[in-house]
Amino acid sequence: MGKERQAAIAPKRHEDYPEWYQQVIRASDLAENSPVRGCMVIKPWGYALWENIKDLLDSMFRETGVKNAYFPLFIPIRFLEKEAEHVDGFAKECAVVTHHRLESAEDGGLIPAGRLEEPLVVRPTSETIIGESFSRWISSYRDLPLLINQWCNVVRWEMRPRIFLRTSEFLWQEGHTAHASRNEAMERTHQMLDIYARLAESCLAIPVIKGEKTASERFPGAVNTFTLEAMMQDRKALQAGTSHFLGQNFARASDIKFQSAQEKEEYAWTTSWGVSTRLIGGIIMTHSDDDGLVLPPVITPSHVVLMPIVKKADHRNPVMDYTHALARELKALRYHHRKITVEIDNREMGGRGWDWIKKGIPLRVEIGPRDIAKDSVFVGRRDRGSRDKESIGRDEFVKTMVPMLDDIQRNLFDRALRLREENTVRLDSQDDFYAFFTPGSPKRPEIHGGFSLTHWCGDPRCEEKIKGDLSVTIRCIPLAHEIETGTCIVCGSKSDRRVVFAKAY
Amino acid sequence: MGKERQAAIAPKRHEDYPEWYQQVIRASDLAENSPVRGCMVIKPWGYALWENIKDLLDSMFRETGVKNAYFPLFIPIRFLEKEAEHVDGFAKECAVVTHHRLESAEDGGLIPAGRLEEPLVVRPTSETIIGESFSRWISSYRDLPLLINQWCNVVRWEMRPRIFLRTSEFLWQEGHTAHASRNEAMERTHQMLDIYARLAESCLAIPVIKGEKTASERFPGAVNTFTLEAMMQDRKALQAGTSHFLGQNFARASDIKFQSAQEKEEYAWTTSWGVSTRLIGGIIMTHSDDDGLVLPPVITPSHVVLMPIVKKADHRNPVMDYTHALARELKALRYHHRKITVEIDNREMGGRGWDWIKKGIPLRVEIGPRDIAKDSVFVGRRDRGSRDKESIGRDEFVKTMVPMLDDIQRNLFDRALRLREENTVRLDSQDDFYAFFTPGSPKRPEIHGGFSLTHWCGDPRCEEKIKGDLSVTIRCIPLAHEIETGTCIVCGSKSDRRVVFAKAY
Repeated sequence: MGKERQAAIAPKRHEDYPEWYQQVIRASDLAENSPVRGCMVIKPWGYALWENIKDLLDSMFRETGVKNAYFPLFIPIRFLEKEAEHVDGFAKECAVVTHHRLESAEDGGLIPAGRLEEPLVVRPTSETIIGESFSRWISSYRDLPLLINQWCNVVRWEMRPRIFLRTSEFLWQEGHTAHASRNEAMERTHQMLDIYARLAESCLAIPVIKGEKTASERFPGAVNTFTLEAMMQDRKALQAGTSHFLGQNFARASDIKFQSAQEKEEYAWTTSWGVSTRLIGGIIMTHSDDDGLVLPPVITPSHVVLMPIVKKADHRNPVMDYTHALARELKALRYHHRKITVEIDNREMGGRGWDWIKKGIPLRVEIGPRDIAKDSVFVGRRDRGSRDKESIGRDEFVKTMVPMLDDIQRNLFDRALRLREENTVRLDSQDDFYAFFTPGSPKRPEIHGGFSLTHWCGDPRCEEKIKGDLSVTIRCIPLAHEIETGTCIVCGSKSDRRVVFAKAY
Repeated sequence: MGKERQAAIAPKRHEDYPEWYQQVIRASDLAENSPVRGCMVIKPWGYALWENIKDLLDSMFRETGVKNAYFPLFIPIRFLEKEAEHVDGFAKECAVVTHHRLESAEDGGLIPAGRLEEPLVVRPTSETIIGESFSRWISSYRDLPLLINQWCNVVRWEMRPRIFLRTSEFLWQEGHTAHASRNEAMERTHQMLDIYARLAESCLAIPVIKGEKTASERFPGAVNTFTLEAMMQDRKALQAGTSHFLGQNFARASDIKFQSAQEKEEYAWTTSWGVSTRLIGGIIMTHSDDDGLVLPPVITPSHVVLMPIVKKADHRNPVMDYTHALARELKALRYHHRKITVEIDNREMGGRGWDWIKKGIPLRVEIGPRDIAKDSVFVGRRDRGSRDKESIGRDEFVKTMVPMLDDIQRNLFDRALRLREENTVRLDSQDDFYAFFTPGSPKRPEIHGGFSLTHWCGDPRCEEKIKGDLSVTIRCIPLAHEIETGTCIVCGSKSDRRVVFAKAY
């Protein structure tokens, strides 16, 4: 009962997961919905998280020879039309610019004026506009590989927006590469998927399954789409990054040709790969608890908050001096790729600690006159209960700060991995499969089932049947699958490997 | 004559400055015009320059307590309408989104569909959309000051686009702050102008004049606009950053109110300030010469290129080993805020050196078997003539690398300052003034005159007259002006200070 009362977020996860998600975001001050339908405002705490993800990824990209560049926000419609599957995939969700100024209407309001000869689409992704540049930049095999990335905003009109997970505008990076051979392009596709997996597991503490998408879930225009799939706490899957092998499809569409070493003219082989601010939704749903956000130390905007406790005026100076001296020492430490970031919260109010719990900061440190007398500090870890705090000698705290952050990082990953393992099953009978994914079914009272590793024959109609019946989709064909003979869960035909079925975001 | 032949860029500056500018950009591979009217593609060398500027500014902002955030790309028309001057200023150049999908037309092409109830404007600047957030974030004086910055793209439809200087889409940062008092907001306005001046002078090596804009050149909706004005090599002025004191105009428009310490409800005082990719145009036009781009060492993407010279196969290994060993040593050095960046160009072709001259890299180092025999390298500095190279002992070069970069940085600044000083005059007679700014006039055969410090009475009609007659505008009223009595160059009325007149980009 006492434990029930402690929760800082209402509703709790098991009461209403989608609403809990919104409330965690509100309480942590990460972001908010904007008055512009489907667009979000990313507040400083949320944006700092994105900047940390960006810095990490950017240096991983650079190590593999990728360079950043920037391409236009607008894409002429005729560019989009070049690849038939591609335009089909994005036409339904494009913001279209049709005018280039505003004029006063008779009622005094403003109306669009200056109609464009050709409407422009706000980029939903940039294969076609970047392809146009590539076709001019590449003429010989000596110009290959061409390895380009851009950090930018993209727009995909969302009918049912959900902050971080599905927003009409989002921030992302999109990598685009061109190669002289199929093999090299395929290697690059996997290399970038591996980088995303490294980011997810080592930095965001989100365990992921690497796999290939089925044809129905492929990027429009791709030959193969590879994906990372993570399990959220409601047992639903979140796609946490994709890497596409585009074959020669976009090279043909954009006329990206090169003279080979054998002096033959050939189409280049291209790839594209991206992750977005959606990852922040994944971080929230993987780690947070009923008290709010929980942030992995590697990517948290700040590592620790110091809260001086001043109850009498004459305590102020010694407590503040002690606090600032400690802050200086902590700031000189490094954790992972950057310096320790320290917040000092000297607001004189109750509930400071809860504010920081809800913001997910890994460590909270209270410093009062009694602590100072013992030369110790009172420390709470975000991966433990809100009341589970301990007194640690000051110097000992400085010394153990980095290992403690490492320990939190590992705990978060282990906890998420355990959840996934406990909710991943291998189902072979149709009855069990349907029961697993049926809300409120007697065998699985939870809402979304989990991951089921199940045989599938490869026929899109069987995939479609499951989707129609249960809203369950094939998240991926795991790259690390074992060859195993079985029968398709739908039609009973022969299958040679299990795939991951789940409900998904 | 020999000197004439050496120039790598055609035309030369004195032949056709605007075309020279385009050719410098092309030859340096900074950026290119895109097929989307008015939008540019920023290529890796140009984007790295922008990233360096961004990193420097971002850390200067942070030191003053500014935090980054992100606001929507789209602004509902009704938001823009809130501030009358503001909307007047931007209505003529707004990209307007009117539809949210594409449909197949009868001819098989695609046409906009799904008309929006309210059209959206692609942000030309974000005062109104950020103001909406501020109005919800601020309720008490305790919430102030609120110091926010965003790095993003903006769109202002350009009828006569010019790469980096005037593009329909450009990258920038826009800072937005809210304060409890007029004084504090005004201090912040100046503080940010000072940061921009520090960036321009200490990092970009561009000398600037700090001043205030006249009413006609003010940001639409601002009470005061402060600016940095720099002189380009064609004697025209380039505005290199602006900081706006917005008074309570936008607070009224967006209803940004707070409860004061005295429990009175008041409108906040706001500021906004920004610099953009236009700065890259300023760098090009300040420093480059007839051989192409010249980059200030503080913000150059790479500091030095090593060019191993291998003419016989059995030289390859020792030369490459020597080169890589030197690169390792150089990369361990720091210059200004970051590590030394080294390029190794081992292409076996003539003209490598010229490629790097045109790209503006500060130092070029040739390493051949004869250099290695003497344990020395052959060094060219970009601030000197292309043939002015010297042999320097290897260890000596490593030791003097950083001072040499410093020397180049200082030289570039001094050279630009000298140009400005030599082309800044104090003109008091109308005849002299008109002669100074008249192309091909006998006294000043140069095209654009320069800066004239001249008396002006303060009347916009006098300002307008000069603009109409000469296309010369008041660039700013210098903050460091001396009080001096004189008479207005146009009407002869009394004036108490000189202002900067010039032609401008």
